[in-house]
Amino acid sequence: MRNFDENTITDAVLERVSGAGDPRIKMISEALVRHLHAFLRETRPSQAEWEQGIAFLTRTGHMCDDKRQEFILLSDALGASMLVDAINNSAGLGETDSTVLGPFYVEGPAEFENGADISNGMDGMPIYVSGMVADLEGKPLAGALVDVWHADDHGYYDVQNFEERGLAGRARLRTDRQGRFSFWSIRPASYPIPHDGPVGDMLKAQGRHPYRPAHVHFMIEAEGKQKLVTHVFAAGDQYLDSDAVFGVKDSIIRPFDEHAPGLAPDGSKRDAPYATLTYDFRLLPAVRAACAD
Amino acid sequence: MRNFDENTITDAVLERVSGAGDPRIKMISEALVRHLHAFLRETRPSQAEWEQGIAFLTRTGHMCDDKRQEFILLSDALGASMLVDAINNSAGLGETDSTVLGPFYVEGPAEFENGADISNGMDGMPIYVSGMVADLEGKPLAGALVDVWHADDHGYYDVQNFEERGLAGRARLRTDRQGRFSFWSIRPASYPIPHDGPVGDMLKAQGRHPYRPAHVHFMIEAEGKQKLVTHVFAAGDQYLDSDAVFGVKDSIIRPFDEHAPGLAPDGSKRDAPYATLTYDFRLLPAVRAACAD
Repeated sequence: MRNFDENTITDAVLERVSGAGDPRIKMISEALVRHLHAFLRETRPSQAEWEQGIAFLTRTGHMCDDKRQEFILLSDALGASMLVDAINNSAGLGETDSTVLGPFYVEGPAEFENGADISNGMDGMPIYVSGMVADLEGKPLAGALVDVWHADDHGYYDVQNFEERGLAGRARLRTDRQGRFSFWSIRPASYPIPHDGPVGDMLKAQGRHPYRPAHVHFMIEAEGKQKLVTHVFAAGDQYLDSDAVFGVKDSIIRPFDEHAPGLAPDGSKRDAPYATLTYDFRLLPAVRAACAD
Repeated sequence: MRNFDENTITDAVLERVSGAGDPRIKMISEALVRHLHAFLRETRPSQAEWEQGIAFLTRTGHMCDDKRQEFILLSDALGASMLVDAINNSAGLGETDSTVLGPFYVEGPAEFENGADISNGMDGMPIYVSGMVADLEGKPLAGALVDVWHADDHGYYDVQNFEERGLAGRARLRTDRQGRFSFWSIRPASYPIPHDGPVGDMLKAQGRHPYRPAHVHFMIEAEGKQKLVTHVFAAGDQYLDSDAVFGVKDSIIRPFDEHAPGLAPDGSKRDAPYATLTYDFRLLPAVRAACAD
Protein backbone atom coordinates (compact mmCIF):
# COMPACT_ATOMS: atom_id res chain seq x y z
CA MET A 1 0.00 0.00 0.00
CA ARG A 2 1.62 3.23 -1.21
CA ASN A 3 1.18 6.10 -3.71
CA PHE A 4 -2.10 7.27 -2.15
CA ASP A 5 -4.02 10.14 -3.63
CA GLU A 6 -6.80 12.28 -2.20
CA ASN A 7 -9.35 9.53 -2.77
CA THR A 8 -7.45 6.28 -2.19
CA ILE A 9 -5.93 7.37 1.13
CA THR A 10 -9.26 6.87 2.93
CA ASP A 11 -9.64 3.23 1.87
CA ALA A 12 -6.01 2.60 2.81
CA VAL A 13 -6.52 3.89 6.35
CA LEU A 14 -9.84 2.02 6.67
CA GLU A 15 -8.10 -1.20 5.66
CA ARG A 16 -5.40 -0.57 8.26
CA VAL A 17 -7.79 0.00 11.18
CA SER A 18 -10.00 -2.93 10.18
CA GLY A 19 -7.69 -5.22 12.17
CA ALA A 20 -8.82 -3.81 15.51
CA GLY A 21 -9.56 -6.70 17.86
CA ASP A 22 -12.45 -5.04 19.67
CA PRO A 23 -15.46 -4.61 17.35
CA ARG A 24 -16.50 -1.38 19.08
CA ILE A 25 -13.02 0.14 18.59
CA LYS A 26 -13.09 -1.03 14.97
CA MET A 27 -16.48 0.63 14.42
CA ILE A 28 -15.48 3.92 16.07
CA SER A 29 -12.09 3.99 14.29
CA GLU A 30 -13.65 3.43 10.88
CA ALA A 31 -16.30 6.11 11.45
CA LEU A 32 -13.65 8.54 12.71
CA VAL A 33 -11.52 8.04 9.60
CA ARG A 34 -14.47 8.42 7.21
CA HIS A 35 -15.88 11.56 8.84
CA LEU A 36 -12.47 13.18 9.44
CA HIS A 37 -11.44 12.60 5.83
CA ALA A 38 -14.81 13.84 4.53
CA PHE A 39 -14.35 17.02 6.61
CA LEU A 40 -10.88 17.55 5.09
CA ARG A 41 -12.00 16.83 1.51
CA GLU A 42 -14.84 19.31 1.93
CA THR A 43 -12.83 22.11 3.56
CA ARG A 44 -9.57 21.49 1.63
CA PRO A 45 -7.27 23.06 4.24
CA SER A 46 -3.97 24.54 3.14
CA GLN A 47 -0.86 23.27 4.93
CA ALA A 48 -0.87 26.50 6.95
CA GLU A 49 -4.50 25.97 7.99
CA TRP A 50 -3.76 22.37 8.96
CA GLU A 51 -0.89 23.61 11.11
CA GLN A 52 -3.27 26.14 12.71
CA GLY A 53 -5.64 23.28 13.50
CA ILE A 54 -2.84 21.26 15.12
CA ALA A 55 -1.80 24.34 17.12
CA PHE A 56 -5.43 24.91 18.24
CA LEU A 57 -5.75 21.34 19.55
CA THR A 58 -2.34 21.58 21.23
CA ARG A 59 -3.27 24.84 23.00
CA THR A 60 -6.57 23.25 24.04
CA GLY A 61 -4.67 20.35 25.60
CA HIS A 62 -2.21 22.64 27.34
CA MET A 63 -5.12 24.59 28.94
CA CYS A 64 -6.34 21.41 30.67
CA ASP A 65 -5.37 20.77 34.28
CA ASP A 66 -7.12 19.55 37.42
CA LYS A 67 -9.10 22.81 37.60
CA ARG A 68 -9.94 23.40 33.95
CA GLN A 69 -11.09 21.11 31.13
CA GLU A 70 -10.83 22.97 27.83
CA PHE A 71 -11.72 19.91 25.70
CA ILE A 72 -15.05 19.57 27.54
CA LEU A 73 -15.61 23.29 26.88
CA LEU A 74 -14.86 22.69 23.20
CA SER A 75 -17.27 19.76 23.06
CA ASP A 76 -19.89 21.86 24.87
CA ALA A 77 -19.43 24.87 22.56
CA LEU A 78 -19.73 22.71 19.43
CA GLY A 79 -22.97 21.13 20.66
CA ALA A 80 -21.27 17.72 20.83
CA SER A 81 -21.91 17.33 24.56
CA MET A 82 -25.64 18.01 24.19
CA LEU A 83 -25.78 15.62 21.23
CA VAL A 84 -24.16 12.85 23.29
CA ASP A 85 -26.59 13.70 26.08
CA ALA A 86 -29.56 13.45 23.71
CA ILE A 87 -28.32 10.10 22.38
CA ASN A 88 -28.08 8.67 25.88
CA ASN A 89 -30.88 10.37 27.78
CA SER A 90 -34.20 10.72 26.07
CA ALA A 91 -36.39 7.91 27.33
CA GLY A 92 -39.39 10.23 27.54
CA LEU A 93 -40.91 8.26 30.41
CA GLY A 94 -41.43 11.24 32.69
CA GLU A 95 -37.88 11.33 34.02
CA THR A 96 -36.22 14.69 34.70
CA ASP A 97 -34.45 15.98 31.61
CA SER A 98 -30.67 15.86 31.64
CA THR A 99 -28.18 18.38 30.35
CA VAL A 100 -24.40 18.80 30.06
CA LEU A 101 -22.00 18.00 32.89
CA GLY A 102 -19.82 20.99 32.00
CA PRO A 103 -16.15 21.43 32.91
CA PHE A 104 -16.52 22.40 36.59
CA TYR A 105 -17.51 19.20 38.36
CA VAL A 106 -14.95 18.18 41.00
CA GLU A 107 -14.78 14.52 42.03
CA GLY A 108 -15.53 13.67 45.66
CA PRO A 109 -17.17 16.87 46.93
CA ALA A 110 -17.38 17.45 50.70
CA GLU A 111 -20.50 16.03 52.37
CA PHE A 112 -22.95 18.38 54.08
CA GLU A 113 -26.07 17.85 56.20
CA ASN A 114 -29.38 18.92 54.72
CA GLY A 115 -30.10 22.55 55.51
CA ALA A 116 -26.40 23.44 55.77
CA ASP A 117 -24.86 26.56 54.24
CA ILE A 118 -22.46 25.44 51.50
CA SER A 119 -21.46 28.94 50.34
CA ASN A 120 -18.19 29.04 52.31
CA GLY A 121 -18.69 32.76 52.87
CA MET A 122 -19.27 33.82 49.24
CA ASP A 123 -20.90 37.22 48.81
CA GLY A 124 -24.34 37.50 47.24
CA MET A 125 -28.02 37.06 47.91
CA PRO A 126 -28.65 33.94 50.04
CA ILE A 127 -30.68 31.24 48.30
CA TYR A 128 -32.48 28.31 49.87
CA VAL A 129 -32.53 25.34 47.49
CA SER A 130 -34.71 22.35 48.23
CA GLY A 131 -36.39 19.49 46.47
CA MET A 132 -37.19 15.82 46.34
CA VAL A 133 -35.75 12.83 44.53
CA ALA A 134 -38.31 10.26 43.39
CA ASP A 135 -38.77 7.40 40.97
CA LEU A 136 -40.95 7.62 37.85
CA GLU A 137 -44.07 7.00 39.91
CA GLY A 138 -43.21 9.81 42.31
CA LYS A 139 -42.20 7.50 45.15
CA PRO A 140 -39.53 9.28 47.25
CA LEU A 141 -36.04 7.83 47.16
CA ALA A 142 -34.32 7.94 50.56
CA GLY A 143 -30.51 8.00 50.77
CA ALA A 144 -29.96 9.28 47.23
CA LEU A 145 -26.63 11.10 46.68
CA VAL A 146 -27.20 14.66 45.49
CA ASP A 147 -24.07 16.45 44.22
CA VAL A 148 -24.61 20.18 43.68
CA TRP A 149 -22.30 22.90 42.36
CA HIS A 150 -22.87 26.41 41.10
CA ALA A 151 -21.22 29.72 40.20
CA ASP A 152 -21.02 32.74 42.50
CA ASP A 153 -22.68 36.13 42.34
CA HIS A 154 -20.19 37.26 39.67
CA GLY A 155 -20.48 34.10 37.58
CA TYR A 156 -17.28 32.36 38.68
CA TYR A 157 -16.90 28.86 40.04
CA ASP A 158 -14.74 28.23 43.09
CA VAL A 159 -12.15 26.38 41.01
CA GLN A 160 -11.65 29.46 38.83
CA ASN A 161 -10.12 31.41 41.72
CA PHE A 162 -9.36 28.52 44.00
CA GLU A 163 -6.27 29.99 45.66
CA GLU A 164 -8.39 32.87 46.96
CA ARG A 165 -11.12 30.99 48.78
CA GLY A 166 -10.95 27.20 48.34
CA LEU A 167 -13.97 25.12 47.37
CA ALA A 168 -17.34 26.87 47.73
CA GLY A 169 -20.88 26.46 46.40
CA ARG A 170 -20.21 22.75 46.04
CA ALA A 171 -21.49 19.87 48.16
CA ARG A 172 -22.69 16.29 48.40
CA LEU A 173 -26.00 15.82 50.19
CA ARG A 174 -28.06 12.73 50.93
CA THR A 175 -31.84 12.66 50.73
CA ASP A 176 -33.75 12.00 53.95
CA ARG A 177 -36.45 9.37 54.49
CA GLN A 178 -38.94 11.51 52.56
CA GLY A 179 -36.51 11.75 49.64
CA ARG A 180 -35.91 15.40 50.43
CA PHE A 181 -32.72 17.51 50.33
CA SER A 182 -32.04 21.17 51.07
CA PHE A 183 -29.19 23.63 51.45
CA TRP A 184 -28.40 27.32 51.72
CA SER A 185 -25.92 28.99 49.41
CA ILE A 186 -25.81 32.22 47.41
CA ARG A 187 -27.75 32.87 44.24
CA PRO A 188 -25.59 32.13 41.16
CA ALA A 189 -25.34 34.62 38.29
CA SER A 190 -25.28 34.03 34.56
CA TYR A 191 -21.71 33.94 33.32
CA PRO A 192 -19.39 33.54 30.37
CA ILE A 193 -17.74 30.15 29.96
CA PRO A 194 -13.96 30.58 30.38
CA HIS A 195 -13.04 32.45 27.22
CA ASP A 196 -9.39 33.37 27.73
CA GLY A 197 -8.27 30.22 25.88
CA PRO A 198 -8.67 28.61 22.46
CA VAL A 199 -12.42 27.95 22.92
CA GLY A 200 -12.91 31.66 23.68
CA ASP A 201 -10.95 32.50 20.53
CA MET A 202 -13.17 30.14 18.56
CA LEU A 203 -16.39 31.71 19.90
CA LYS A 204 -15.09 35.17 19.05
CA ALA A 205 -14.13 34.11 15.52
CA GLN A 206 -17.59 32.59 15.11
CA GLY A 207 -19.26 35.81 16.25
CA ARG A 208 -20.74 34.17 19.37
CA HIS A 209 -21.09 35.37 22.95
CA PRO A 210 -19.80 33.03 25.68
CA TYR A 211 -22.67 33.38 28.18
CA ARG A 212 -24.74 30.77 29.96
CA PRO A 213 -27.97 31.50 31.83
CA ALA A 214 -27.73 31.25 35.63
CA HIS A 215 -28.17 27.67 36.91
CA VAL A 216 -27.43 25.19 39.67
CA HIS A 217 -25.83 21.86 38.68
CA PHE A 218 -27.16 18.56 40.02
CA MET A 219 -25.78 15.05 39.74
CA ILE A 220 -28.05 12.53 41.45
CA GLU A 221 -27.44 8.84 42.10
CA ALA A 222 -29.78 6.41 43.84
CA GLU A 223 -29.65 2.64 44.23
CA GLY A 224 -31.26 0.89 41.29
CA LYS A 225 -31.70 4.14 39.38
CA GLN A 226 -29.97 5.73 36.40
CA LYS A 227 -27.57 8.55 37.32
CA LEU A 228 -29.02 11.96 36.44
CA VAL A 229 -26.78 14.86 35.35
CA THR A 230 -28.66 18.11 34.94
CA HIS A 231 -29.05 21.78 35.89
CA VAL A 232 -31.95 23.89 37.07
CA PHE A 233 -31.95 27.21 35.19
CA ALA A 234 -33.23 30.56 36.47
CA ALA A 235 -36.52 31.57 34.87
CA GLY A 236 -36.34 34.90 33.05
CA ASP A 237 -32.59 34.83 32.49
CA GLN A 238 -31.59 36.81 29.40
CA TYR A 239 -29.45 33.94 28.03
CA LEU A 240 -32.03 31.13 28.14
CA ASP A 241 -32.40 31.30 24.35
CA SER A 242 -28.73 31.68 23.51
CA ASP A 243 -26.91 29.43 26.01
CA ALA A 244 -23.33 29.12 24.68
CA VAL A 245 -23.48 25.34 25.15
CA PHE A 246 -27.08 24.67 23.98
CA GLY A 247 -28.08 23.12 27.31
CA VAL A 248 -31.46 24.73 28.10
CA LYS A 249 -34.71 22.77 28.21
CA ASP A 250 -38.01 24.27 29.35
CA SER A 251 -38.63 21.43 31.80
CA ILE A 252 -35.57 22.35 33.89
CA ILE A 253 -36.26 26.09 34.26
CA ARG A 254 -37.64 27.30 37.60
CA PRO A 255 -38.03 30.70 39.24
CA PHE A 256 -35.27 31.80 41.61
CA ASP A 257 -37.88 33.67 43.68
CA GLU A 258 -36.83 36.65 45.77
CA HIS A 259 -38.31 37.24 49.24
CA ALA A 260 -38.33 40.08 51.74
CA PRO A 261 -36.63 39.47 55.13
CA GLY A 262 -38.64 37.18 57.40
CA LEU A 263 -39.27 33.52 58.09
CA ALA A 264 -37.64 31.22 55.49
CA PRO A 265 -39.11 27.85 54.38
CA ASP A 266 -36.75 25.98 56.74
CA GLY A 267 -38.06 27.97 59.73
CA SER A 268 -34.98 30.18 60.04
CA LYS A 269 -35.39 33.92 60.43
CA ARG A 270 -33.69 36.00 57.70
CA ASP A 271 -32.90 39.63 58.32
CA ALA A 272 -31.98 40.34 54.69
CA PRO A 273 -33.69 39.52 51.38
CA TYR A 274 -33.17 35.96 50.15
CA ALA A 275 -34.17 33.72 47.25
CA THR A 276 -35.66 30.25 47.00
CA LEU A 277 -35.46 27.54 44.36
CA THR A 278 -37.16 24.18 44.47
CA TYR A 279 -37.15 21.23 42.08
CA ASP A 280 -38.44 17.69 42.33
CA PHE A 281 -36.37 15.17 40.36
CA ARG A 282 -37.55 11.88 38.88
CA LEU A 283 -35.04 9.15 38.03
CA LEU A 284 -35.23 6.33 35.50
CA PRO A 285 -34.74 2.77 36.70
CA ALA A 286 -31.17 1.56 36.15
CA VAL A 287 -32.30 -1.50 34.22
CA ARG A 288 -33.21 0.76 31.34
CA ALA A 289 -29.74 2.26 31.33
CA ALA A 290 -28.22 -1.19 31.12
CA CYS A 291 -30.43 -2.13 28.15
CA ALA A 292 -29.64 1.11 26.35
CA ASP A 293 -25.88 0.41 26.36
CA MET B 1 -33.40 28.24 20.86
CA ARG B 2 -33.75 25.47 23.45
CA ASN B 3 -35.16 21.95 23.95
CA PHE B 4 -32.84 20.42 21.34
CA ASP B 5 -33.04 16.75 20.49
CA GLU B 6 -30.62 14.47 18.67
CA ASN B 7 -31.63 15.93 15.30
CA THR B 8 -32.40 19.60 15.98
CA ILE B 9 -29.17 20.26 17.90
CA THR B 10 -27.14 20.27 14.67
CA ASP B 11 -29.21 23.00 13.00
CA ALA B 12 -29.07 25.02 16.22
CA VAL B 13 -25.28 24.94 16.31
CA LEU B 14 -25.06 25.66 12.57
CA GLU B 15 -27.26 28.71 13.03
CA ARG B 16 -25.05 29.91 15.88
CA VAL B 17 -21.76 29.64 13.94
CA SER B 18 -23.29 31.21 10.82
CA GLY B 19 -22.49 34.65 12.26
CA ALA B 20 -18.74 34.21 11.81
CA GLY B 21 -17.33 37.35 10.20
CA ASP B 22 -14.67 35.60 8.14
CA PRO B 23 -16.26 33.46 5.38
CA ARG B 24 -13.47 30.86 5.59
CA ILE B 25 -13.97 30.45 9.35
CA LYS B 26 -17.73 30.19 8.76
CA MET B 27 -17.23 27.49 6.13
CA ILE B 28 -14.79 25.47 8.26
CA SER B 29 -16.95 25.85 11.41
CA GLU B 30 -20.09 24.68 9.63
CA ALA B 31 -18.31 21.68 8.09
CA LEU B 32 -16.77 20.79 11.46
CA VAL B 33 -20.17 20.83 13.18
CA ARG B 34 -21.85 18.75 10.46
CA HIS B 35 -19.12 16.09 10.27
CA LEU B 36 -18.56 15.94 14.05
CA HIS B 37 -22.30 15.52 14.69
CA ALA B 38 -22.61 12.93 11.91
CA PHE B 39 -19.74 10.97 13.51
CA LEU B 40 -21.52 11.07 16.90
CA ARG B 41 -24.91 10.12 15.47
CA GLU B 42 -23.33 7.17 13.67
CA THR B 43 -21.23 5.89 16.59
CA ARG B 44 -23.71 6.80 19.36
CA PRO B 45 -21.13 7.02 22.16
CA SER B 46 -22.19 6.36 25.73
CA GLN B 47 -21.37 9.07 28.26
CA ALA B 48 -18.46 6.91 29.44
CA GLU B 49 -17.11 6.60 25.89
CA TRP B 50 -17.44 10.35 25.37
CA GLU B 51 -15.46 10.89 28.56
CA GLN B 52 -12.81 8.46 27.25
CA GLY B 53 -12.61 10.53 24.07
CA ILE B 54 -12.14 13.76 26.06
CA ALA B 55 -9.47 12.03 28.16
CA PHE B 56 -7.70 10.78 25.00
CA LEU B 57 -7.52 14.29 23.52
CA THR B 58 -6.39 15.72 26.86
CA ARG B 59 -3.57 13.16 27.16
CA THR B 60 -2.59 13.89 23.56
CA GLY B 61 -2.31 17.60 24.39
CA HIS B 62 -0.33 16.92 27.54
CA MET B 63 2.22 14.85 25.55
CA CYS B 64 3.02 17.89 23.38
CA ASP B 65 6.06 20.02 24.20
CA ASP B 66 8.88 21.62 22.23
CA LYS B 67 10.36 18.17 21.51
CA ARG B 68 7.24 16.13 20.80
CA GLN B 69 4.07 16.82 18.82
CA GLU B 70 1.51 14.11 19.59
CA PHE B 71 -1.32 15.81 17.62
CA ILE B 72 0.80 15.71 14.45
CA LEU B 73 1.42 12.03 15.19
CA LEU B 74 -2.33 11.52 15.57
CA SER B 75 -3.02 13.31 12.29
CA ASP B 76 -0.27 11.25 10.62
CA ALA B 77 -1.55 7.93 12.00
CA LEU B 78 -5.13 8.65 10.87
CA GLY B 79 -3.99 9.47 7.33
CA ALA B 80 -5.15 13.08 7.75
CA SER B 81 -1.67 14.51 7.15
CA MET B 82 -1.25 12.63 3.87
CA LEU B 83 -4.76 13.67 2.80
CA VAL B 84 -3.94 17.34 3.45
CA ASP B 85 -0.69 16.79 1.57
CA ALA B 86 -2.55 15.27 -1.40
CA ILE B 87 -5.03 18.17 -1.44
CA ASN B 88 -2.22 20.71 -1.59
CA ASN B 89 0.50 18.97 -3.54
CA SER B 90 -0.49 17.03 -6.61
CA ALA B 91 0.14 19.27 -9.58
CA GLY B 92 1.50 16.36 -11.59
CA LEU B 93 3.80 18.63 -13.60
CA GLY B 94 6.96 16.64 -12.98
CA GLU B 95 7.67 18.12 -9.56
CA THR B 96 9.14 15.90 -6.84
CA ASP B 97 6.39 14.24 -4.83
CA SER B 98 5.81 15.54 -1.32
CA THR B 99 5.02 13.61 1.85
CA VAL B 100 4.31 14.32 5.51
CA LEU B 101 6.35 16.78 7.60
CA GLY B 102 6.14 14.48 10.64
CA PRO B 103 6.57 15.57 14.26
CA PHE B 104 10.38 15.87 14.37
CA TYR B 105 11.19 19.02 12.41
CA VAL B 106 12.95 21.63 14.56
CA GLU B 107 12.74 25.29 13.50
CA GLY B 108 15.97 27.07 12.65
CA PRO B 109 18.42 24.17 12.24
CA ALA B 110 22.17 24.87 12.37
CA GLU B 111 23.76 25.73 9.01
CA PHE B 112 26.47 23.49 7.57
CA GLU B 113 28.77 23.71 4.55
CA ASN B 114 28.20 21.25 1.75
CA GLY B 115 30.20 18.07 2.34
CA ALA B 116 30.16 18.53 6.14
CA ASP B 117 29.48 15.72 8.61
CA ILE B 118 26.21 16.51 10.37
CA SER B 119 26.07 13.33 12.48
CA ASN B 120 27.46 14.94 15.65
CA GLY B 121 29.22 11.67 16.47
CA MET B 122 26.23 9.31 16.16
CA ASP B 123 27.17 5.62 15.78
CA GLY B 124 26.30 3.79 12.59
CA MET B 125 27.35 3.26 9.00
CA PRO B 126 28.44 6.56 7.42
CA ILE B 127 26.27 7.71 4.54
CA TYR B 128 27.10 10.29 1.88
CA VAL B 129 23.94 12.08 0.74
CA SER B 130 24.02 14.30 -2.32
CA GLY B 131 21.72 15.70 -4.94
CA MET B 132 20.57 18.65 -6.94
CA VAL B 133 17.71 21.11 -6.68
CA ALA B 134 16.21 22.18 -10.00
CA ASP B 135 13.10 23.73 -11.51
CA LEU B 136 10.58 21.78 -13.57
CA GLU B 137 12.79 22.08 -16.66
CA GLY B 138 15.80 20.67 -14.81
CA LYS B 139 17.58 24.04 -14.55
CA PRO B 140 19.71 24.01 -11.36
CA LEU B 141 18.65 26.35 -8.56
CA ALA B 142 21.61 27.97 -6.80
CA GLY B 143 21.25 29.17 -3.20
CA ALA B 144 18.24 26.99 -2.37
CA LEU B 145 17.78 26.22 1.34
CA VAL B 146 17.88 22.48 2.01
CA ASP B 147 16.80 21.43 5.52
CA VAL B 148 17.54 17.78 6.29
CA TRP B 149 16.81 15.64 9.32
CA HIS B 150 16.82 11.92 9.95
CA ALA B 151 16.77 9.20 12.60
CA ASP B 152 19.83 7.38 13.90
CA ASP B 153 21.00 3.82 13.50
CA HIS B 154 18.50 2.66 16.13
CA GLY B 155 15.60 4.65 14.69
CA TYR B 156 15.59 7.55 17.15
CA TYR B 157 15.71 11.25 16.37
CA ASP B 158 18.06 13.53 18.28
CA VAL B 159 15.11 15.26 20.00
CA GLN B 160 13.97 11.91 21.45
CA ASN B 161 17.07 11.68 23.65
CA PHE B 162 18.18 15.27 23.45
CA GLU B 163 19.76 15.46 26.92
CA GLU B 164 22.18 12.72 25.96
CA ARG B 165 23.68 14.19 22.80
CA GLY B 166 22.07 17.45 21.66
CA LEU B 167 20.97 17.99 18.08
CA ALA B 168 22.36 15.53 15.54
CA GLY B 169 21.52 14.33 12.04
CA ARG B 170 19.90 17.68 11.38
CA ALA B 171 21.16 20.58 9.26
CA ARG B 172 20.44 23.45 6.91
CA LEU B 173 22.48 23.46 3.69
CA ARG B 174 22.51 25.81 0.73
CA THR B 175 22.88 24.62 -2.86
CA ASP B 176 25.98 25.73 -4.76
CA ARG B 177 26.06 27.39 -8.16
CA GLN B 178 25.32 24.08 -9.85
CA GLY B 179 22.28 23.63 -7.59
CA ARG B 180 24.07 20.84 -5.72
CA PHE B 181 24.15 19.92 -2.03
CA SER B 182 25.90 17.17 -0.09
CA PHE B 183 26.60 16.01 3.45
CA TRP B 184 27.90 13.07 5.45
CA SER B 185 25.88 11.56 8.27
CA ILE B 186 25.01 8.06 9.42
CA ARG B 187 22.52 5.79 7.70
CA PRO B 188 19.09 6.03 9.37
CA ALA B 189 17.15 2.91 10.35
CA SER B 190 13.46 2.15 10.06
CA TYR B 191 11.73 2.92 13.34
CA PRO B 192 8.49 2.98 15.30
CA ILE B 193 6.79 6.36 15.65
CA PRO B 194 6.75 7.28 19.36
CA HIS B 195 4.24 4.83 20.77
CA ASP B 196 4.46 5.33 24.52
CA GLY B 197 1.56 7.82 24.43
CA PRO B 198 -2.09 7.96 23.36
CA VAL B 199 -1.30 7.51 19.64
CA GLY B 200 0.64 4.36 20.49
CA ASP B 201 -2.33 3.14 22.51
CA MET B 202 -4.60 3.84 19.54
CA LEU B 203 -2.37 1.92 17.11
CA LYS B 204 -2.27 -1.05 19.50
CA ALA B 205 -6.06 -1.01 19.91
CA GLN B 206 -6.41 -0.90 16.12
CA GLY B 207 -4.06 -3.88 15.71
CA ARG B 208 -1.43 -1.82 13.87
CA HIS B 209 2.36 -1.74 14.07
CA PRO B 210 4.00 1.69 14.58
CA TYR B 211 6.88 1.33 12.08
CA ARG B 212 8.03 3.60 9.31
CA PRO B 213 10.51 2.60 6.58
CA ALA B 214 13.97 4.23 6.84
CA HIS B 215 14.10 7.69 5.27
CA VAL B 216 15.78 11.09 5.21
CA HIS B 217 13.56 14.20 5.54
CA PHE B 218 13.98 17.15 3.19
CA MET B 219 12.39 20.59 3.28
CA ILE B 220 13.55 22.71 0.34
CA GLU B 221 12.92 26.39 -0.34
CA ALA B 222 14.13 28.40 -3.31
CA GLU B 223 13.29 31.90 -4.48
CA GLY B 224 10.23 31.93 -6.70
CA LYS B 225 9.54 28.26 -6.04
CA GLN B 226 6.96 26.37 -3.99
CA LYS B 227 8.35 24.92 -0.74
CA LEU B 228 8.81 21.15 -0.94
CA VAL B 229 8.37 18.92 2.13
CA THR B 230 9.29 15.31 1.45
CA HIS B 231 11.41 12.27 2.40
CA VAL B 232 13.61 9.93 0.44
CA PHE B 233 12.89 6.34 1.52
CA ALA B 234 15.33 3.43 1.50
CA ALA B 235 14.65 0.94 -1.29
CA GLY B 236 13.97 -2.58 -0.05
CA ASP B 237 12.86 -1.55 3.43
CA GLN B 238 10.44 -4.06 4.96
CA TYR B 239 7.93 -1.35 5.91
CA LEU B 240 7.53 0.40 2.53
CA ASP B 241 4.10 -1.19 2.11
CA SER B 242 2.87 -0.67 5.65
CA ASP B 243 4.23 2.75 6.68
CA ALA B 244 2.35 3.67 9.88
CA VAL B 245 1.62 7.14 8.47
CA PHE B 246 0.85 6.21 4.82
CA GLY B 247 3.66 8.42 3.46
CA VAL B 248 5.40 6.22 0.88
CA LYS B 249 5.37 6.99 -2.85
CA ASP B 250 7.42 5.03 -5.41
CA SER B 251 8.91 8.19 -6.86
CA ILE B 252 10.69 9.06 -3.61
CA ILE B 253 12.32 5.67 -2.96
CA ARG B 254 16.03 5.34 -3.71
CA PRO B 255 18.70 2.75 -2.87
CA PHE B 256 20.84 3.47 0.21
CA ASP B 257 23.79 1.72 -1.56
CA GLU B 258 26.54 0.12 0.54
CA HIS B 259 30.18 0.35 -0.52
CA ALA B 260 33.44 -1.30 0.54
CA PRO B 261 36.16 0.95 2.04
CA GLY B 262 37.88 3.15 -0.54
CA LEU B 263 37.47 6.41 -2.39
CA ALA B 264 34.07 8.04 -1.78
CA PRO B 265 32.20 10.20 -4.33
CA ASP B 266 33.43 13.40 -2.67
CA GLY B 267 37.05 12.31 -3.09
CA SER B 268 37.57 11.40 0.56
CA LYS B 269 39.21 8.08 1.48
CA ARG B 270 37.03 5.85 3.68
CA ASP B 271 38.61 3.09 5.71
CA ALA B 272 35.30 1.48 6.69
CA PRO B 273 32.20 0.51 4.68
CA TYR B 274 29.88 3.39 3.89
CA ALA B 275 26.59 4.04 2.08
CA THR B 276 25.49 6.57 -0.53
CA LEU B 277 22.14 8.13 -1.37
CA THR B 278 21.43 10.61 -4.11
CA TYR B 279 18.27 12.40 -5.18
CA ASP B 280 17.59 15.22 -7.61
CA PHE B 281 14.62 17.40 -6.60
CA ARG B 282 12.38 19.43 -8.89
CA LEU B 283 10.34 22.33 -7.51
CA LEU B 284 7.11 23.89 -8.75
CA PRO B 285 7.03 27.60 -9.46
CA ALA B 286 5.61 29.57 -6.54
CA VAL B 287 3.03 31.30 -8.73
CA ARG B 288 1.15 28.04 -8.94
CA ALA B 289 1.04 27.78 -5.14
CA ALA B 290 -0.45 31.24 -4.92
CA CYS B 291 -3.15 30.37 -7.46
CA ALA B 292 -4.03 27.15 -5.66
CA ASP B 293 -4.73 28.95 -2.36
